[in-house]
Amino acid sequence: MNGSVLILGGDGFCGWPTALHLSSQGYEVAIVDNLSRRRIDDRLGASSLTPIASIQERLAAWRSVTGKEIAFYGIDIAADYGRFRDVLADQRPGAIVHFAEQRSAPYSMKGTDEKNYTIDNNVRTTHHTLLAMVDLALDAHLVHLGTTGVYGYSTVDMMITEGYLDVVIPLDEGRSIRDTILYPTQPGSIYHLTKSLDQLFFQFYAQNDRLRITDLHQGIVWGTQTPETRRHPALVNRFDYDGDYGTVLNRFLVEAAIGYPLTVHGSGGQTRAFINIQDTARCIALALQNPPAAGEKPRIFNQLAETKRVRDLAEMIARMTGAEIAYVDNPRKEAAENELAMSNQSFRDLGLAPILLEEYLFTETIEIVGAYKDRIDPELIPAQSLWTTGHRPGVVTNRAGGRS
Amino acid sequence: MNGSVLILGGDGFCGWPTALHLSSQGYEVAIVDNLSRRRIDDRLGASSLTPIASIQERLAAWRSVTGKEIAFYGIDIAADYGRFRDVLADQRPGAIVHFAEQRSAPYSMKGTDEKNYTIDNNVRTTHHTLLAMVDLALDAHLVHLGTTGVYGYSTVDMMITEGYLDVVIPLDEGRSIRDTILYPTQPGSIYHLTKSLDQLFFQFYAQNDRLRITDLHQGIVWGTQTPETRRHPALVNRFDYDGDYGTVLNRFLVEAAIGYPLTVHGSGGQTRAFINIQDTARCIALALQNPPAAGEKPRIFNQLAETKRVRDLAEMIARMTGAEIAYVDNPRKEAAENELAMSNQSFRDLGLAPILLEEYLFTETIEIVGAYKDRIDPELIPAQSLWTTGHRPGVVTNRAGGRS
Repeated sequence: MNGSVLILGGDGFCGWPTALHLSSQGYEVAIVDNLSRRRIDDRLGASSLTPIASIQERLAAWRSVTGKEIAFYGIDIAADYGRFRDVLADQRPGAIVHFAEQRSAPYSMKGTDEKNYTIDNNVRTTHHTLLAMVDLALDAHLVHLGTTGVYGYSTVDMMITEGYLDVVIPLDEGRSIRDTILYPTQPGSIYHLTKSLDQLFFQFYAQNDRLRITDLHQGIVWGTQTPETRRHPALVNRFDYDGDYGTVLNRFLVEAAIGYPLTVHGSGGQTRAFINIQDTARCIALALQNPPAAGEKPRIFNQLAETKRVRDLAEMIARMTGAEIAYVDNPRKEAAENELAMSNQSFRDLGLAPILLEEYLFTETIEIVGAYKDRIDPELIPAQSLWTTGHRPGVVTNRAGGRS
Repeated sequence: MNGSVLILGGDGFCGWPTALHLSSQGYEVAIVDNLSRRRIDDRLGASSLTPIASIQERLAAWRSVTGKEIAFYGIDIAADYGRFRDVLADQRPGAIVHFAEQRSAPYSMKGTDEKNYTIDNNVRTTHHTLLAMVDLALDAHLVHLGTTGVYGYSTVDMMITEGYLDVVIPLDEGRSIRDTILYPTQPGSIYHLTKSLDQLFFQFYAQNDRLRITDLHQGIVWGTQTPETRRHPALVNRFDYDGDYGTVLNRFLVEAAIGYPLTVHGSGGQTRAFINIQDTARCIALALQNPPAAGEKPRIFNQLAETKRVRDLAEMIARMTGAEIAYVDNPRKEAAENELAMSNQSFRDLGLAPILLEEYLFTETIEIVGAYKDRIDPELIPAQSLWTTGHRPGVVTNRAGGRS
């Protein structure tokens, strides 16, 4: 046995495979999820490329192949503090993994309602979790999923550290002091902003209430299946390729599969951090095995395997599939080109040997995009969210004559 | 004419005298307030030492003595984005002054409900304001009241700068870069935390949407009346002395008036920043006259007249009134002693010559505490909020035999 863990947002893209991975590792796992991600799909008229089963079917399938039970609580943590607190009081888990935030940057910038929803949901879910731990005097280890996007994409030639930064503060008369500060974040969307806000919540609650917190700033997750989700068709993980939730790599794979050019936003000079979904689950397990002590400031690890320039990624997939590349307007407000060097030393020190794009991307393409190609709806691919009203979105003309 | 200004939270302790001051200066003033501060008084069983009139009586009195109209909108900005947006769309003010946040640190730490309320109200009010400005393409100057408490009370011997900090970031191979960063805040309560969160909202919206924002980190406000509130009895400002909303100076004045010892929390070695309420209103007027340009990062000014050690303040009042001093447990989780040197250069450059405690405190004592002494309820004075469950509050024995 590995103790008990409550997974907030355990029905989502990262939460689900993590729940299965921890269950297979001997943790007693329970999931809290309001299934909001499925409802957002309904609103957007989008759906996972892979046909995902209901949470009940998922849990039944896991029981049938492993004999292990995962409990499920259908609670909206942001809206219903009381019921969430009751579950926590009843379970008193040794650890909590918090994925329960709206996680799409384009969705968070879509309009007033989506901005409000993202702030409300993400701020309240994080705060209710911290508050319930204090309220119940629950000495659990809280592991939270942040994003590498909080750092902002600097054009400065420096290695981005893990959550904290050593600085020298010049004073008068030639004096100076050294300090280690929370990395000064420059979030680029409402979604990323919520993860910066989360950092301040964690700093406060670790200091005031001695909560034990690990915050994982994760890169863009790619890949779909893990050893656990492959064990039964009803365990399959989601694969999003719509303009809001589909990240750049998925968009390229889907475009290649249906003979579209790969739509690169702007010059493709943006460098991003990436990690495979299997490593997401492994990193969470590593973080759980290495909790901070009470009174320690929050541990912040960068959770990424590698950084890649978007156009290099497009070229890699073009070589692999024969697809063409189309450069379209960038809907985001960001620098056209940026370097990105980011430390992942903490997880490497804990033994992570991550899966790299070069070696595994072809498997992903065949296993998912090849298998479910017939389910692709080309209308869903273009990004529709504008960061500001002065921008135009990166829409590629639908050659079949649809919208432009 | 000085343009139009919408004052969010214009019925409160700082908002009300600011509304009158700006009205007297020729601004067309409108107030949005949900009157939450009055309802919190009801819940706490507390009330202002000065008998404050209803908002309707206040506005009628102002009209009667000046002939000037101030419009009032009874809207809960946090709860009702739609109605707030409608007012903003209708008014399209040239400036917005944002006081509409729960502003007591002890209240924000009282319990789960108060923590949740403070986060929800303060985060949503700030975000709804920013969002409505973007939504309506309203190029107004937003002036927000922050707190000097965001900086944390450092024991380091350095002058706290105004919102930003120049740092040197050491890199490898002896290289280093210079940067100006948002001051790394260390808020000490949920209330203070919300003002740190606000800073990140402002950074994002100034960068992404080119909103023009001035954030004023204000010290502890003391004093009650201003030239405008003295013009009619129904215009009198609030004076809070209860354990939640009464700040240290008011507590001392009330204790002295009823023959109690002045209750100093801990050693009284805490140094705090102070400003008189008349200067609050003047500083807002100065900020309004000096707006940032679109695209500029938020201007952050420290709004304080002076810093004082709490026990020095107690001794000053003891000398003035003959009161004794009692040292009681500190309910807050903070360093026993701290230095505090804080720049107020921006407002001095704009011409502020602030009122100092030494020269004006005696007037305040006679004018307010002397005049309304009979309304003092000694039961309300002690602080009741604990920062963590390991602390005991700073309760002084009620010599009349009440609770201890």
